[in-house]
Amino acid sequence: MKISRVDFFYLSMPEIHDRADGSQDSLLVRVEGGKHVGWGECEAAPLVSIASWCCPMSHSVCRPVRDSVLDQTLESAQDIPRILRLAKRNSDDLLQADHTLAGIDMALWDLLGKKMDLPVYRLLGYDKAFPKTPYASQLFGDDPQETYTKTRRVRELGFRATKVGWGGFGEGSSEDDAEHVRAAREGLGDEGILLVDAGKIWGDDVDEAAKRLAALEDCRVLWLEEPFVAGALAAYKTLSERCRDVKLAGGEDCHDEYSAQHTIDYAGIGYVQIDAGRTGITVAKKIADYAAPRGVTFVNHTFTTQLALSASLQPYAGLEKHTICEYPVEPTSLGRELTRETLARDAEGLVHIPERPGLGVEPDENAIRKYLVDVEIKVGGRTIFSTPRVV
Amino acid sequence: MKISRVDFFYLSMPEIHDRADGSQDSLLVRVEGGKHVGWGECEAAPLVSIASWCCPMSHSVCRPVRDSVLDQTLESAQDIPRILRLAKRNSDDLLQADHTLAGIDMALWDLLGKKMDLPVYRLLGYDKAFPKTPYASQLFGDDPQETYTKTRRVRELGFRATKVGWGGFGEGSSEDDAEHVRAAREGLGDEGILLVDAGKIWGDDVDEAAKRLAALEDCRVLWLEEPFVAGALAAYKTLSERCRDVKLAGGEDCHDEYSAQHTIDYAGIGYVQIDAGRTGITVAKKIADYAAPRGVTFVNHTFTTQLALSASLQPYAGLEKHTICEYPVEPTSLGRELTRETLARDAEGLVHIPERPGLGVEPDENAIRKYLVDVEIKVGGRTIFSTPRVV
Repeated sequence: MKISRVDFFYLSMPEIHDRADGSQDSLLVRVEGGKHVGWGECEAAPLVSIASWCCPMSHSVCRPVRDSVLDQTLESAQDIPRILRLAKRNSDDLLQADHTLAGIDMALWDLLGKKMDLPVYRLLGYDKAFPKTPYASQLFGDDPQETYTKTRRVRELGFRATKVGWGGFGEGSSEDDAEHVRAAREGLGDEGILLVDAGKIWGDDVDEAAKRLAALEDCRVLWLEEPFVAGALAAYKTLSERCRDVKLAGGEDCHDEYSAQHTIDYAGIGYVQIDAGRTGITVAKKIADYAAPRGVTFVNHTFTTQLALSASLQPYAGLEKHTICEYPVEPTSLGRELTRETLARDAEGLVHIPERPGLGVEPDENAIRKYLVDVEIKVGGRTIFSTPRVV
Repeated sequence: MKISRVDFFYLSMPEIHDRADGSQDSLLVRVEGGKHVGWGECEAAPLVSIASWCCPMSHSVCRPVRDSVLDQTLESAQDIPRILRLAKRNSDDLLQADHTLAGIDMALWDLLGKKMDLPVYRLLGYDKAFPKTPYASQLFGDDPQETYTKTRRVRELGFRATKVGWGGFGEGSSEDDAEHVRAAREGLGDEGILLVDAGKIWGDDVDEAAKRLAALEDCRVLWLEEPFVAGALAAYKTLSERCRDVKLAGGEDCHDEYSAQHTIDYAGIGYVQIDAGRTGITVAKKIADYAAPRGVTFVNHTFTTQLALSASLQPYAGLEKHTICEYPVEPTSLGRELTRETLARDAEGLVHIPERPGLGVEPDENAIRKYLVDVEIKVGGRTIFSTPRVV
């Protein structure tokens, strides 16, 4: 079949709040080919990713993403990497292209899965999908008491693992931070898996980060996530050498296979966190293939919808020992309502990757209409983008 | 002073041709503060960089670039890195932000230079600007004869150095490529500095690239540029170990200090090529500071206007031993007409960095009007961008 049509839907909560909650908006991608429809989602800044789809060409290797996608043939799992290679070449100078391609790539896998009547993880070469242990991803409370209450609550909800992050963590004294970490451990209980996300707060300042290590080790934190900005690989490496048991986690900003490979090779991380909304599924699978034999555990990064969650789990569905997954527990109503299906936890608290064809998660047309934001872009008097009809 | 206004002008040739000529369009940035005006330029995909300036916020660290720039104080050279740090944090999830910031950063330095009555290189800490040896940057001819004619012509124009690249180089047989390289050397003469740009044609295939090394060594090519895609640092490193005298050059895609550091640290390059239209001047200066003590020579990447050229030379103006610079010799009429001033070559063929305040190169209002493309972006029924008035 040919890729006959690609549509973008900019969805948003009525009001965007100034907090680190990525589920407040969404760029949904719908791809049509033959009689099938596939869905994907690009992470963050919907308008900019739309612009990189439809912008005028600047020169031969700075073309809009659409030039490499529309009318392409999609018959087998080899066609998607081929389309991506073409797009990477044609849009080489277009920085945003990777984020736009990520959502398109998801939708192409969903489409191909529906055509071939197979779940995406099968198309990726896995025989079986192993259930994952979800961690509840939360922001730190405003004070240790609130942090305690929050981790206590997710424990009561049956989560075996939780991650706390952002809030004011890392900005005050290391003693304040230690109290938050202790409160989190107390709320979660002795058995739970505790993860901490520093949200890049220390830039590339290794000493500032190292001051927090003792409390993290004492509270048996499994990983410290993003102590530094994404590119500070040398700072990561130095800090990793000062850790006893706690591992470093990072990689959510990766938008191509190379940036992830560098993080794996040079940053001394124990966990590589990949957001399929930024890399797409094809690239995420390559990263999983690269990480596993190097002793680095793959884990998804997902803070938004169940569609993004399903897409982010496919690349490591078949890696039995890579057991942890991020699971959004407090998304906005947009994040909750967008899809009909959810990847619900089973009686043991595990998340199962859908066995339905494609990604196994379908957007709800009513939700699309409810949150849809109208976009119109004119260049040189010509309308190059306007929000498509939902049906 | 406060940054009171930032305007973007999308300029384009009437028709964009399918060739690797980055001078076919331009995103010009005008920043106003106090009674001064500064100018900068973002490389490639103007519409996408405009969108990253004005898009709605997605969440607390995915804000539009404007949120971190407008109303900021600009009094000293320390304010520009401070504004950049703020923007990097606030727009962390916005992939395109670096390209937008690059042009703003240029304009801020131009503005500050005008206010302080000093050329930008002085604000960057250099006492003196050393003239550079320009290389004429050209595409390969369609056949060896045309390649000969092209390098012969630039020799007659008084250039001591030339670079040939793209065209079909690397796509056919290594013997065809060798003939082109020999023709280029013959046209340029024995004395000239010859550079070859492979335009990433071999992806990350080291063996394919290595087949061309003998001809490059025989023709005393100083550098082989971009044999591979930007992230393929391991492929670069392996190839560098198979080179005798020819050095590898790369880095034009770098859009932050870290991607350049990784290229310097892990890719075995001899020359790091930085486009201030993608990094801005602040980051480019940091990269020059990092490269020099590590034995890597800094060189600008500039294929567009004289404004971009001046901005790209400032970061290494004071590095006496880093002598080569890229110099656009066949830009479009837009590239030629945009600025009143040019960085003309002197009697010895050297390029001098302007001693005028700021970047020393001013856009011509008539040229802006001639090439201006009207842009209008509406989100949720509200116009969030429309092309500003030129005066």
